Amino acid sequence: MEYKFSDKVSSLKASAIREILKFTADPEVISFAAGNPAPEAFPTERIAEISAELLQNDPILALQYNVTEGYTPLREFLKEWLSSKNCFHKEFDDLIVTSGGQQANELSCKVLLNEGDTLLCESPCFIGSLNAFRSYNVNLVGVDMDDDGINLDKLEHALKTQPNVKILYLIPNFQNPTGRTMSYEKRKAVYDLACRYDFIILEDDPYGELRFSGENIPSIKSLDTEGRVIYSSTFSKLISSGFRTGFVSAPAPIIQKIVVCKQVSDVHSNIWAQVVSHRFMTTIDRDAHFNKLREIYRRKSELMCSYIDNEFSDKITYIRPEGGLFVWCTLPENCDMNAFCSKAVQEYKIAVVPGNSFSIDENETSHSFRLNYSTPTDKQISEGMEILARMTRDILDK
Amino acid sequence: MEYKFSDKVSSLKASAIREILKFTADPEVISFAAGNPAPEAFPTERIAEISAELLQNDPILALQYNVTEGYTPLREFLKEWLSSKNCFHKEFDDLIVTSGGQQANELSCKVLLNEGDTLLCESPCFIGSLNAFRSYNVNLVGVDMDDDGINLDKLEHALKTQPNVKILYLIPNFQNPTGRTMSYEKRKAVYDLACRYDFIILEDDPYGELRFSGENIPSIKSLDTEGRVIYSSTFSKLISSGFRTGFVSAPAPIIQKIVVCKQVSDVHSNIWAQVVSHRFMTTIDRDAHFNKLREIYRRKSELMCSYIDNEFSDKITYIRPEGGLFVWCTLPENCDMNAFCSKAVQEYKIAVVPGNSFSIDENETSHSFRLNYSTPTDKQISEGMEILARMTRDILDK
Repeated sequence: MEYKFSDKVSSLKASAIREILKFTADPEVISFAAGNPAPEAFPTERIAEISAELLQNDPILALQYNVTEGYTPLREFLKEWLSSKNCFHKEFDDLIVTSGGQQANELSCKVLLNEGDTLLCESPCFIGSLNAFRSYNVNLVGVDMDDDGINLDKLEHALKTQPNVKILYLIPNFQNPTGRTMSYEKRKAVYDLACRYDFIILEDDPYGELRFSGENIPSIKSLDTEGRVIYSSTFSKLISSGFRTGFVSAPAPIIQKIVVCKQVSDVHSNIWAQVVSHRFMTTIDRDAHFNKLREIYRRKSELMCSYIDNEFSDKITYIRPEGGLFVWCTLPENCDMNAFCSKAVQEYKIAVVPGNSFSIDENETSHSFRLNYSTPTDKQISEGMEILARMTRDILDK
Repeated sequence: MEYKFSDKVSSLKASAIREILKFTADPEVISFAAGNPAPEAFPTERIAEISAELLQNDPILALQYNVTEGYTPLREFLKEWLSSKNCFHKEFDDLIVTSGGQQANELSCKVLLNEGDTLLCESPCFIGSLNAFRSYNVNLVGVDMDDDGINLDKLEHALKTQPNVKILYLIPNFQNPTGRTMSYEKRKAVYDLACRYDFIILEDDPYGELRFSGENIPSIKSLDTEGRVIYSSTFSKLISSGFRTGFVSAPAPIIQKIVVCKQVSDVHSNIWAQVVSHRFMTTIDRDAHFNKLREIYRRKSELMCSYIDNEFSDKITYIRPEGGLFVWCTLPENCDMNAFCSKAVQEYKIAVVPGNSFSIDENETSHSFRLNYSTPTDKQISEGMEILARMTRDILDK
C-alpha cells in the first residue's frame, strides 16, 4: 500500500549529520562531526558502584514504574542545585525530569505552539531542536547572530513582523554549532524584549557547566521575574548521555502541562538512570568532578585550536570557544563550503559538519563548518587537524 | 504572566487514574487501581548480574549516545523473535526500539494523523493511549465491544460515517481495561475491513506473552499481507517497566518516519536498559521465564476471581481474563458506578478504577470498574477482596 504521512512529519528528514556520520563508519575516516562526550569524561567506576548497590539493595525501585514528574529525591536535589545557580525560583517554578534535553525542548514546543505559530531561534541553530520544532509544523524563523549572541535589531524586527511569536529558543552558553556565548547585556536585553513583546524564552543549557575559560555569565533564567523562562539542561555531558536524563525548570503551570504531555509520550524516564544520577550527584565532590571534565575539554579544545592558529590557511576564521564541545570555522566567501566538506570526507578522510546543516532554511548559503573536539582522541585530533590544515592550504593558498 | 497553551494540549488532563492513585498514598487503602507488574515478576538477580558485567567490561557502550533505531543486537534479536511469532515480516517490515509501548503508540499517531483525522479505538480503551491520541487533536471515536472484541457492525458504521479514518487502535490480547481477547475470526474480519476501507491497524500487545489459560490466538500482524499493521509491544511486563524499553514492528516506510520523530523526541532510548534487555533475552531460558510470569499472574487472577465467584453480590458480572493484569466488573444498571467507586476508596479503603476513566467521552455513563491483581500482594488481594465483596453485598443485596 501507499503510505500517507501527517503534514507535520511528511517533509521531516533525519538529521543531515547522520548522513555524514555514515562516512565515519569507514575506519580510515577521522571524525570531527559528532557531538558525543569524551569517553574518559564518563565516571564509569562510580556509576558501576552505585548501580551495583542499587540493584542489590533496592532492585524494585530501579525496575518498577515510577511517577511521570521524575524520581522525587532527584527532583528535590535538582531544585536545590538549580536554586543555588539562580536557575530555579522557588516562589513560582516547578521542575520535571525529562528523557534528555531533547525531550525538554520538544515538549515545550508541543505545549505552547499551535501549527503556524512562530518560534524564533538563533541562526545557525542546533539541528536536533530545529527538527523537533519542525515536527510541530510551526513557523520557524532564524535570527542572525553577532559574536556576543543573537542580533537584537534583527530579533526586534522579527518580533514586529512575524505572526504569533510564542517562543524564542536560545543556547546562551557555548552555542551549538557556533560555540558562541551570549553576553550578559544581551541576556538582559533579550529578557526585556520578552516582557515587552510577551513571549517565552526557552533557554537550553546543556554545556553551562563546561566552561573552561572566561567568566561565568548568569543565565537568562536568573533574570526571570515574570515567569517567562523555561530553563532546560541535561546530565548528558556531566554524567552519561546514554542515560537520557535531562531536566526542565519552568513556571509551575508550564511544568504541569509538560507533565501531562510527557505522560502520554513515555510515561516516565528510565528510573535506574534517575536514581543513579541522584546518588552520583549527591555523593561525589561535584566541583572536583566538573573541574575534571572542564580540564578534559580545555585540553582538547586547545589542541584543536592550536592547529587552526598555526597550520590552517589564514583565510579561515574561527570562534575560539570558552566551553562546550565545538569550534565554528568560516571559509572565505569565494569558497564553496559544501564542496569543501565533501572533499574533506571523501578525499582527505576527515568528517566535518557543513554549516548549512544548522540553517533554518537548508538551502541558505553558509560558508562555515563545525568541528567537534570532545569525541576524537587527542591522537585523532592531532592527526586529523594536520590533514585538515594541509587541505585548507591546498585549497585556499595555492 | 498568563500562559496560553496550544489547542492540542490545553484540554488535556492527567490520567484520572493518577487522581485515584493519590488515595493509595494512605497506607490503610488497599489498591486494585494500579497496573504495575508484580514485583516478584522482575528477574532482579539476573539483571544485576548482567548490569554488573556490562558496566565492568563495556561501560562506554552503556553510557555513550547510541543510534535512534535502537541497540543493533537488540533489534536483530527482536526481528528474529517476532518473526518466529509471525509478528515481523522480513520482506517488508522494519523495527525500532522505543521508550516503552507508550512512545510506540504516540509516535504512530504523530506520524500518520493530521489534526481532525479520525482514529478509531475500542470503547472502553486504555487511557494512556487515549490521552496520547488526544494530544494530537485528532477525532477520537470509540467503537463498542462484544465479549470477543470490537463490534464489527459498529466498526463498519464508523468507517462509513467518520472523516479520514487513518488508524484503528486495538489491544487484541487481554485488553486494558476489559481483559477481553479478540477472537481469531474477528481479527481476520478487522484486517479485511482495513484492506477494504484503506486504514492502518495499530495493534498494541503489551500482555501477549502473559496468557495463563486458553489457546494462543495469532496476532493481526500475522495476517498482514498488505503492510497495514503496526505491531507494538514492550518489555515492561516481561523484564522491567522502569526500563522503558518497547518496540515496534511495522512496514519499513512507517518505521523510517517513526525513527525521524523519535530522534526529535528523545534521540534514543536509555541504552543501558537496551543492552541489559538484549543480554537477558538471549541468555535466559525464555520459556521458563515466561512460564514463571504466567504462573504468578494465573495464581493472582484466580485468587481475585475466586472472591468474585464466591463472595461478591451476584448482581455483579465480570469477565474472567485468560491473561494480562485486569478484571472488568460491571454493576447493575440502577447502581451509580462513580458513587460506588468513591465509597469504595473513602469508606471501605479499597481503590478501584471507575469505568468511565476509559471512556472516549468521559461524561459517558459506565457501570463498570477495573480491578488489577498484578500489583497487590496475595494477602492484599485476599483482604481487599473480602472487604469489597462485603461492600457489594451491603450495597446491592440489602
